Amino acid sequence: MTESFPSAARDQTLLRRANELSVLAVLRGGAPRPLREISDATGLSWRSTQVVAEILDAQGWLVEAEADEGSGGRRAVGRPARRYRFRAEVGHVVGIDVGTHGVQVFVADLEATIVGSHHAEVSPGDPAQVRLATAEHALHAALAEAGLQPKDVWAAAMGTSGVIDPGGTVTASALLPGWRGLNPGGQLGSVLQCPVDVANDANLAALAERWLGHRAETMIYLLAGVRLGAGLVIGGQLHRGAAGAAGEIGALRGVGWHDAAERLVATAGGTEPRTDRGEAATRVFEAARAGDPVAVAAVDRFAADVARGVTAMVLTIDPDLVVLGGGFSHAADLLLPRLGTELAETCLHLPRLEASELGDNAVAHGALRLALDTVDQRMTSLDSTVPLAPAAIRGQ
Amino acid sequence: MTESFPSAARDQTLLRRANELSVLAVLRGGAPRPLREISDATGLSWRSTQVVAEILDAQGWLVEAEADEGSGGRRAVGRPARRYRFRAEVGHVVGIDVGTHGVQVFVADLEATIVGSHHAEVSPGDPAQVRLATAEHALHAALAEAGLQPKDVWAAAMGTSGVIDPGGTVTASALLPGWRGLNPGGQLGSVLQCPVDVANDANLAALAERWLGHRAETMIYLLAGVRLGAGLVIGGQLHRGAAGAAGEIGALRGVGWHDAAERLVATAGGTEPRTDRGEAATRVFEAARAGDPVAVAAVDRFAADVARGVTAMVLTIDPDLVVLGGGFSHAADLLLPRLGTELAETCLHLPRLEASELGDNAVAHGALRLALDTVDQRMTSLDSTVPLAPAAIRGQ
Repeated sequence: MTESFPSAARDQTLLRRANELSVLAVLRGGAPRPLREISDATGLSWRSTQVVAEILDAQGWLVEAEADEGSGGRRAVGRPARRYRFRAEVGHVVGIDVGTHGVQVFVADLEATIVGSHHAEVSPGDPAQVRLATAEHALHAALAEAGLQPKDVWAAAMGTSGVIDPGGTVTASALLPGWRGLNPGGQLGSVLQCPVDVANDANLAALAERWLGHRAETMIYLLAGVRLGAGLVIGGQLHRGAAGAAGEIGALRGVGWHDAAERLVATAGGTEPRTDRGEAATRVFEAARAGDPVAVAAVDRFAADVARGVTAMVLTIDPDLVVLGGGFSHAADLLLPRLGTELAETCLHLPRLEASELGDNAVAHGALRLALDTVDQRMTSLDSTVPLAPAAIRGQ
Repeated sequence: MTESFPSAARDQTLLRRANELSVLAVLRGGAPRPLREISDATGLSWRSTQVVAEILDAQGWLVEAEADEGSGGRRAVGRPARRYRFRAEVGHVVGIDVGTHGVQVFVADLEATIVGSHHAEVSPGDPAQVRLATAEHALHAALAEAGLQPKDVWAAAMGTSGVIDPGGTVTASALLPGWRGLNPGGQLGSVLQCPVDVANDANLAALAERWLGHRAETMIYLLAGVRLGAGLVIGGQLHRGAAGAAGEIGALRGVGWHDAAERLVATAGGTEPRTDRGEAATRVFEAARAGDPVAVAAVDRFAADVARGVTAMVLTIDPDLVVLGGGFSHAADLLLPRLGTELAETCLHLPRLEASELGDNAVAHGALRLALDTVDQRMTSLDSTVPLAPAAIRGQ
């Protein structure tokens, strides 16, 4: 039957791309492997494997490993088996978190190994241009640490507070001065020579959770701290919404998210300046653990506030999992049982509840993941008529 | 370069399947076409096209069309060009709506042409076994009209009221007696010799809307009538939720969906028996159109009730579109402007609002679409090691 299928040019292109992607998939994220193993893993003939590996080597995707690299130092007798590894350093991506108090930049290679990072402090009251200039400085510092130039970056993403429309413009922002109406990715994009995909911080934290933390096909991630936000993963994908406004349940009348943290810390005296609200909350949680009835009541009320928004989202999308992330995830011992009780009263199906363990860098990690996804999409697009060359995937 | 890619057996299988699917895709839903046109449309060589068409013909997917079929009666001079058409009648699917007042069955071929249908009345108070027996009778009647046997059905789906878990069991149902705890697809599936995929009626109406009505990547469909329900389409796919409970926002405290229609018709006198609530609602809508202030106030209140649930869903998923369907879609002139005003007060991004024009059979059409999707998924699975033969796709 095989002879009856003379292949048209289109088929050859498709087949070649499929073969190249198979070889890359086998080598990405792993040790150097000899051609024989690559052939076994892909189902390609030895000869095809050799041709594909040579093409990918010439393009810069693969590198022939040293004779003793990954083989425990033993020398082969006779002709040494040719081994290849994926050149993760062929390209790099950037993930940036531009927040209220700080900017975090990560630079990683195509296997998500972080090769440069920089953190810079900003103040909640800083004007937009100061915040963006700080981000630009942090970006240059992280690239310098990695020994890279801006042109070496294939894709970049940024997480920040507010609703960000598909064009990258901030259409609503309650927190950052001068942020509304801005396109914060534009300025950094011109530095990098590649577009910067800007997304809501809670959305990117959800993506990071899906990548590095608790996993589920459909998930609600709560960014819970001195402010409350939510990000959704639906069908394994980040769901941003038509105008980037998915997860903005805090705007629902009566849900009480805008001042929930304020009411929580009012219990602790109410005299704290705005920037110390996180510490004040920590003291309320500690007092509640010690059994202080006023603090317990405040935590009860805060959990009920959180639950009102989460209940509406759970009844809408019926997720497998709800993850408590953000600064208040360290109070999961207090918040999750209360959240479970509240949800059980109304939800038809109670999702799994977990505390995030990703810590402060969840948003920056989510931005990194989004940038890596952009590269992966370019690489794995079988329909593409573009050759699978680094310069084409780099997209510049 | 072509010679350098000797194809392994795996590649041949993949390529052959891809070629077969290309030819089927070109012919499905269209008139008979000569080999030359199929070759042009697929990019396959003439010889490959001929081989693939002969294989598909032998398997029953294609049929060689009569010489003058689809060619306007003109006879070709010399050797007539061979023409093929997709044999939509090679397989059939069934869509069933089991509702409060009636059962609707559609039987369609693989191009969604309805070849048999049957409607049977049931009463709201009928016990579950009476309702299921009526559905079974209606199924046999629709198959008889189509001239088919139960074994001719490749896939089937059913829409019904309530929350249906992924295993097909009704886990919550406020409307149908004896429905909770039941697996309504099981009984019909044993008749048909194929599984019956059971889904919530509002979910299937949403799928029908996506197929035959207003289209959007992300959409909320409101099944609005004497009861209120919602179905979600997210990323172009029906989103049922982890436990089949997506769109159950009516359970949210204070949203008022469970008795919204009751309060609407209470205006019209309040003495109507339960089964006439639809007619009573129609009279309220007519009175409101005539300017009756009591009726206008009742419609205002009903629209506000609907909007409370829709607002929570819009803030969660930020859809492109909200569609008003169900029996009250004929009052879209009254309800949509009010809904728009209410949503604009709270939502960060106002979705498009449209009235469904699908009418009473939306749920049965959605069930048909779900069954067709099941067949399509089996057919287009490129990973499949199963040959693309009707017996394999039929899955029995």
